[in-house]
Amino acid sequence: MPPAPVPPEIEAFLLEPNPAVVATLRADGSPHSVATWYDWVDGLILLNMDASRARLGHLRRDPRVSLTVLDKDSWYSHVSLAGVVDRLVDDTDLADIDRLALRYQGHPFRKRAGKRVSAWMRVKRWHRWD
Amino acid sequence: MPPAPVPPEIEAFLLEPNPAVVATLRADGSPHSVATWYDWVDGLILLNMDASRARLGHLRRDPRVSLTVLDKDSWYSHVSLAGVVDRLVDDTDLADIDRLALRYQGHPFRKRAGKRVSAWMRVKRWHRWD
Repeated sequence: MPPAPVPPEIEAFLLEPNPAVVATLRADGSPHSVATWYDWVDGLILLNMDASRARLGHLRRDPRVSLTVLDKDSWYSHVSLAGVVDRLVDDTDLADIDRLALRYQGHPFRKRAGKRVSAWMRVKRWHRWD
Repeated sequence: MPPAPVPPEIEAFLLEPNPAVVATLRADGSPHSVATWYDWVDGLILLNMDASRARLGHLRRDPRVSLTVLDKDSWYSHVSLAGVVDRLVDDTDLADIDRLALRYQGHPFRKRAGKRVSAWMRVKRWHRWD
């Protein structure tokens, strides 16, 4: 996998509201994966999760993460990113999840009650497959 | 995540030719993820890869694996499976990759020259999100 920074054409791909899957590490070191929204913001990947999610505990324990992004129009084209989550930030005003909901659904996030946390992923390596 | 076996409605979902992402572990224990074809065969997940792929080395070293399968019609519906690859088998006659190519593309696999390996994943836990 080539090292970061990702080239402009990969940035353009990441800016599309594509399906994605994030992989983290359980306490026993085994891989955990789940579908996720994401955004590409100032050279970082934004993820956001309910504060009760298992992967939040995973990231607090081990910040290493992998994200595979599938082309929304043809999933045979895909990009994988390897990196670390440097920052976990309480999304107290739901600004980050609203950003993601607007991007993917066209309206603010509907569940206003739960606590949410944003994870900012720094990309170290990337790989594209077409 | 509930333990295996997966219930019939999850089996029906897995039998569809859905997009999927497989997560394995690098030598340093970090997660690696990439899009993949798969099939559900006699209660096991079939994966198949070119013999040169990094994830084959990962699986030989540590058989723990996670697979997230997205609904091909609406990726907000998805299933994640956690388990182990019990068997890595040379796909000498390309029967397994042909099975996957037929399932996803409607014709046998076009590249007949490369060596390929099948990985048979035993599911230990599953999770559905709708």
